[in-house]
Amino acid sequence: MTVIGIDIGGTKISGALYHDKEIHTGEKLFLGDACGDEVTGLIVSLINMLLQKSGGKALAVGIAIPGIWNEETGTAWAPNIPGWIDYPLRHKLQNHFCNLPIYITNDRACYILGEVWKGNAKGCRDAVFLAAGTGIAAGIVAGGTVLNGAAGAAGAIGWMALSKPYNEKYSAVGCNEYYASGPGLVRYAREILTSDSNYSGIFKNEATLDAEKLIIEFENGDEVAVAVINNAISYWGMCVANLVSIFNPEKIILGGGVFNNNGCRFREAIYNEAMKWAQPVSMRQVSIECSALGEKAGIYGALYYALEQEKQHVSHE
Amino acid sequence: MTVIGIDIGGTKISGALYHDKEIHTGEKLFLGDACGDEVTGLIVSLINMLLQKSGGKALAVGIAIPGIWNEETGTAWAPNIPGWIDYPLRHKLQNHFCNLPIYITNDRACYILGEVWKGNAKGCRDAVFLAAGTGIAAGIVAGGTVLNGAAGAAGAIGWMALSKPYNEKYSAVGCNEYYASGPGLVRYAREILTSDSNYSGIFKNEATLDAEKLIIEFENGDEVAVAVINNAISYWGMCVANLVSIFNPEKIILGGGVFNNNGCRFREAIYNEAMKWAQPVSMRQVSIECSALGEKAGIYGALYYALEQEKQHVSHE
Repeated sequence: MTVIGIDIGGTKISGALYHDKEIHTGEKLFLGDACGDEVTGLIVSLINMLLQKSGGKALAVGIAIPGIWNEETGTAWAPNIPGWIDYPLRHKLQNHFCNLPIYITNDRACYILGEVWKGNAKGCRDAVFLAAGTGIAAGIVAGGTVLNGAAGAAGAIGWMALSKPYNEKYSAVGCNEYYASGPGLVRYAREILTSDSNYSGIFKNEATLDAEKLIIEFENGDEVAVAVINNAISYWGMCVANLVSIFNPEKIILGGGVFNNNGCRFREAIYNEAMKWAQPVSMRQVSIECSALGEKAGIYGALYYALEQEKQHVSHE
Repeated sequence: MTVIGIDIGGTKISGALYHDKEIHTGEKLFLGDACGDEVTGLIVSLINMLLQKSGGKALAVGIAIPGIWNEETGTAWAPNIPGWIDYPLRHKLQNHFCNLPIYITNDRACYILGEVWKGNAKGCRDAVFLAAGTGIAAGIVAGGTVLNGAAGAAGAIGWMALSKPYNEKYSAVGCNEYYASGPGLVRYAREILTSDSNYSGIFKNEATLDAEKLIIEFENGDEVAVAVINNAISYWGMCVANLVSIFNPEKIILGGGVFNNNGCRFREAIYNEAMKWAQPVSMRQVSIECSALGEKAGIYGALYYALEQEKQHVSHE
């Protein structure tokens, strides 16, 4: 079966073709300042390019959107795409492709589906992808099925409550994301720099602060980096522990921008932190691994979603 | 369809019959000091009693066990039944009933199935039962299916990490259960009494301490009760928040010994605490309710599990 996969990211839309059991990636269109229907126009163009490339053989399209996909209403809610608030993406795309089935889901679901198909969770029926990047979210496969929730918002683990008491500063992004996302590492570093006037290390000039640099300077013993990363390891570890206790999964896959860019070196430290908190039987059974697919997890998952959905629909006809 | 339900509790085994669309409960056998195969003997006796009562019409049995049920290996792990460590319950029961299908699952799965069938989560496809009693656990229905995990241990939310830093005292039961189970309320009250020598209230004599009394004395303003219950509300609220953010459910049902015995008066306070922490879109969509079935949630769920499993097996033949 030949299918098309589309992954909508922060700056670009990536496309791929699955044909003769091979995956062809690399097609992309940049988002620029596109908003609302313009983004749909870019998706349509990319699908048309890939349809032609497939010689008209593509039977279905899978699309990963960066936000909440409501399957019932056919609407997308993507905070980073202007105009995509309850945006009727299914209807808009159906206007362009009347006979091509289009299956849409959210990006975090695609991450874990990609890993289950071709990555480090291959063949798993119970596995979680912990994505830490600009935000924190989880893609969850339980009993062989992706978990969506009542309105497509499942997996919002950036909002995981991990440290009482509540602080008003968590209200915009959630307690876990506040400290343990990429911007969270930088945010906590700024908090430390503001309160510690004696610090004279590399981050004295705050302009040099970014998540990857904090990860690297941790190894060099910079005191701000050490405090920030140790704090993040405790959040990542507690978060992993809670996913283990709740889902009793075979695998937890660490991915997203932070873990793909050097963050996975903390895998063992995260495991050791999780070990303290999690249900012991489930903790002994789980394996914590880094993403095998990296940035391609989403596009692989979109292809796999199209394949699986199309198989199901065909068998029901 | 006529089916039998069995719920194995801490002190007794309860049985029920579903016949002509009516539920007949009330049959029970006490566990006493029974261990290992003796417990199986009691289950067999109760099934035989109910088979006779049904006039031989019962087509299947559903059983709720207090622990972990591994469907793949057919074994039960129930910490409170001596000898049930990887106990081959399926094989043992099949020796007694060669032609009667027996479907086994864990008690927390039955709690939510009972509420989905006949209680406050009626018809929900995404709902969680938060059981707080001797322990804390969750029964989870996601996308219409009970969540089991890779080896039947899903839903172990007593181990939810909710307050860093880690303390060695959490190692036996988990952070959440340490404070927010029935014994947890008493445990925290003892901690306060040990450190506060000026207290002269009703719990001065520690022998009078129990969870229900703490709940009642909270209303009377007893300072130990107020500290213990406010602390528990923060844990229950954070736990509810995390279930909301992770599962995006339609309902969360509060049940188990603590909530069934006056604890549900804190429903609104728990809601308000969860509101602070949870993903806001999912929080607006969820309804937090008390168990409609109380102590009968498990036996109702066992009946429903038998009905649903039998329907599936018949349709696959």
